[in-house]
Amino acid sequence: MVQVNGNYLKLKAGYLFPEIARRVRAFSDANPSAALIRLGIGDVTEPLPQACRAAMKIAIDEMGTRDGFRGYGPEQGYQWLREKIASNDFQARGCQISAEEIFVSDGSKCDSSNILDILGPENRIAVTDPVYPVYVDSNVMAGRTGEADELGRYGGLSYLPITAANGFTAEIPTEKVDLIYLCFPNNPTGAVASKAQLKAWVDYARANEALILFDAAYEAFIQDPELPHSIYEIEGARECAIEFRSFSKNAGFTGTRCAFTVVPRGLMGKAINGEKVEIWGLWNRRQCTKFNGVSYIVQRAAEAVYSSEGAAEVKALVAFYMENAAIIRNALSAAGLQVYGGEQAPYVWIKTPEGLDSWGFFDNLLSGANVVGTPGSGFGAAGEGYFRLSAFNSRANVEEAMARLKKLLISP
Amino acid sequence: MVQVNGNYLKLKAGYLFPEIARRVRAFSDANPSAALIRLGIGDVTEPLPQACRAAMKIAIDEMGTRDGFRGYGPEQGYQWLREKIASNDFQARGCQISAEEIFVSDGSKCDSSNILDILGPENRIAVTDPVYPVYVDSNVMAGRTGEADELGRYGGLSYLPITAANGFTAEIPTEKVDLIYLCFPNNPTGAVASKAQLKAWVDYARANEALILFDAAYEAFIQDPELPHSIYEIEGARECAIEFRSFSKNAGFTGTRCAFTVVPRGLMGKAINGEKVEIWGLWNRRQCTKFNGVSYIVQRAAEAVYSSEGAAEVKALVAFYMENAAIIRNALSAAGLQVYGGEQAPYVWIKTPEGLDSWGFFDNLLSGANVVGTPGSGFGAAGEGYFRLSAFNSRANVEEAMARLKKLLISP
Repeated sequence: MVQVNGNYLKLKAGYLFPEIARRVRAFSDANPSAALIRLGIGDVTEPLPQACRAAMKIAIDEMGTRDGFRGYGPEQGYQWLREKIASNDFQARGCQISAEEIFVSDGSKCDSSNILDILGPENRIAVTDPVYPVYVDSNVMAGRTGEADELGRYGGLSYLPITAANGFTAEIPTEKVDLIYLCFPNNPTGAVASKAQLKAWVDYARANEALILFDAAYEAFIQDPELPHSIYEIEGARECAIEFRSFSKNAGFTGTRCAFTVVPRGLMGKAINGEKVEIWGLWNRRQCTKFNGVSYIVQRAAEAVYSSEGAAEVKALVAFYMENAAIIRNALSAAGLQVYGGEQAPYVWIKTPEGLDSWGFFDNLLSGANVVGTPGSGFGAAGEGYFRLSAFNSRANVEEAMARLKKLLISP
Repeated sequence: MVQVNGNYLKLKAGYLFPEIARRVRAFSDANPSAALIRLGIGDVTEPLPQACRAAMKIAIDEMGTRDGFRGYGPEQGYQWLREKIASNDFQARGCQISAEEIFVSDGSKCDSSNILDILGPENRIAVTDPVYPVYVDSNVMAGRTGEADELGRYGGLSYLPITAANGFTAEIPTEKVDLIYLCFPNNPTGAVASKAQLKAWVDYARANEALILFDAAYEAFIQDPELPHSIYEIEGARECAIEFRSFSKNAGFTGTRCAFTVVPRGLMGKAINGEKVEIWGLWNRRQCTKFNGVSYIVQRAAEAVYSSEGAAEVKALVAFYMENAAIIRNALSAAGLQVYGGEQAPYVWIKTPEGLDSWGFFDNLLSGANVVGTPGSGFGAAGEGYFRLSAFNSRANVEEAMARLKKLLISP
């Protein structure tokens, strides 16, 4: 009988968000009149920028003519988009990243899991705890871990706790690892890393010839001008880091689908036979063979993010969600909860009240306030006792949700 | 140093189409005034159907409103699209395929390579020779093969020759294999399989508990009403086959990006520990964790393919390309070449003239007629001595290319 990948059987329960969807569906079925407000999954809610919509309509009209029709595009993305990205997101911030180092894709989730295709089976891998579940699950599925223990920690992975004690930025490992997943601004905690903190990671990676997978999907939400938006703002990062970026959260592309990954030329890895190999070529080959590029129409929408109109609309969207985050922070603080994040990121990270674990608080909010959040324990064992609320929703829903939470928490 | 996937180093030369692009670029640079006609890569050229463009514009307007905005969609695709696919492409042809068995994706190339994620390392794998290179290369990259020999055949793979002698449909293997890639209408040969031939494959797969990966990306080009469009037209195929479909070639979506994969419920595989596992659940988990679904706007375009206007436009597109194929067949036959395919598929498969191998004929056509085709040897060792021309181009280009080829071949 055909053999399947048995590593999938090691996965614990469902992927976090489908599990939340399941509980919410069960609650809704039992309480059909409940008006749920969803602050769980980090999904944007506000309309797609006008600049992006206009660009797509022009692209659609082009596709209706023989001369303007576009078939297969470059697997790496169109050059005009790669150049705009390199120029606006990197060179303008002093990062030496060129267009050929930009690989346009249909999502950061895809890229951050597909990247394992080009990495070997024998790396020592470090993830933070809590962590975006895809980093862990994709390693489990690729057979890069052992079985999970009763806390859901997989054998073979190094877990770096991020807690209130270390300001939710992980400490540099004392042991040697080969591959490190970092995400700043952080999902789920909303924490950020300073240049000094990122420099310590880059120094570690260079000293240990390790590779950093840096997820900067939330960089647009950084408010403090001193904070780095890209790991390439740190000297030496080109030698040790791949960066993931997305249009999902800044420009509202969660349903439109466009992202990109930065792979610097000259970034090296080693094959099992000891041969040094340039990682750019491997990723390029992976994309050429297993990917067909992003829809032309969608790439035109992404390009419009860099127009002056588009940039202004994105700025307004980010400001809007950050105002939501402030409302959430203030309301929960007023209700006596300890809150973190939400100042440079669209996520507020909450210490659950005495006596309630993460899923207990989830069920409490769902049934008592009809508000959906995300249990911290879903992001890792060290997330137990925490809870994530997302700032992605309408103002009216955020305000209503906070009114309900205050009522539930202050006078239950 | 971080370890990379050394299996990539086993890959021979570039992926076929980038290699062609490289040779064409070199020729164009040296001959900037040459008016190239591209009949190489199977990329459509005619405008996107009006029904699809209209549907996308409506979707874009929806995305501009709070109520109509769509964020993350279901990773498996929207239900309305899955239902239309199941109903029109399968149930209407008597295949018992339901909407939940349809997984919408951004490309058949992606799906047919990503499917290896959920399969184990110890399957005996069979591919035809010649074959669509992605099946082979994705197996090489995933470490499912040994090294290549001097003909480019990888150790560990079973190659099933498809030749004029067997009508370009491979013979059922005499040995036991676990995984079989089949593509009908065939890329590159343009051959088709009858119901009796597919039944023999299904019978073999059931008897050997093997899995068939059936690529039906070109089914829309079938003209003979007796020929099966889906492997699920064969009794028992639900127990042994996954099918790949695409909107790329029928509706001209090569630059718009939408496809789907059919994974029947109850289709089983075996983990290394002997446990039987339902493959549907593995693919569902793979897509939920590593994929974010297709752009909402693009899914609306795919839905429009099933409207009466869309269906009529697709029918006209297919008829147009098939007329091109007939022009190519007739011209090459008149020039004394032996031609195959091109009657139920948009590819014409040509025996190269005496004394010229596949790349020799490629270079000959490129320099002598400024026509780009695809060397048969790029599809496998048994493709040596053959050459593929694609029917995807404008009528004027096809006619001009044939005039040039006749001139080159008849009076060189």
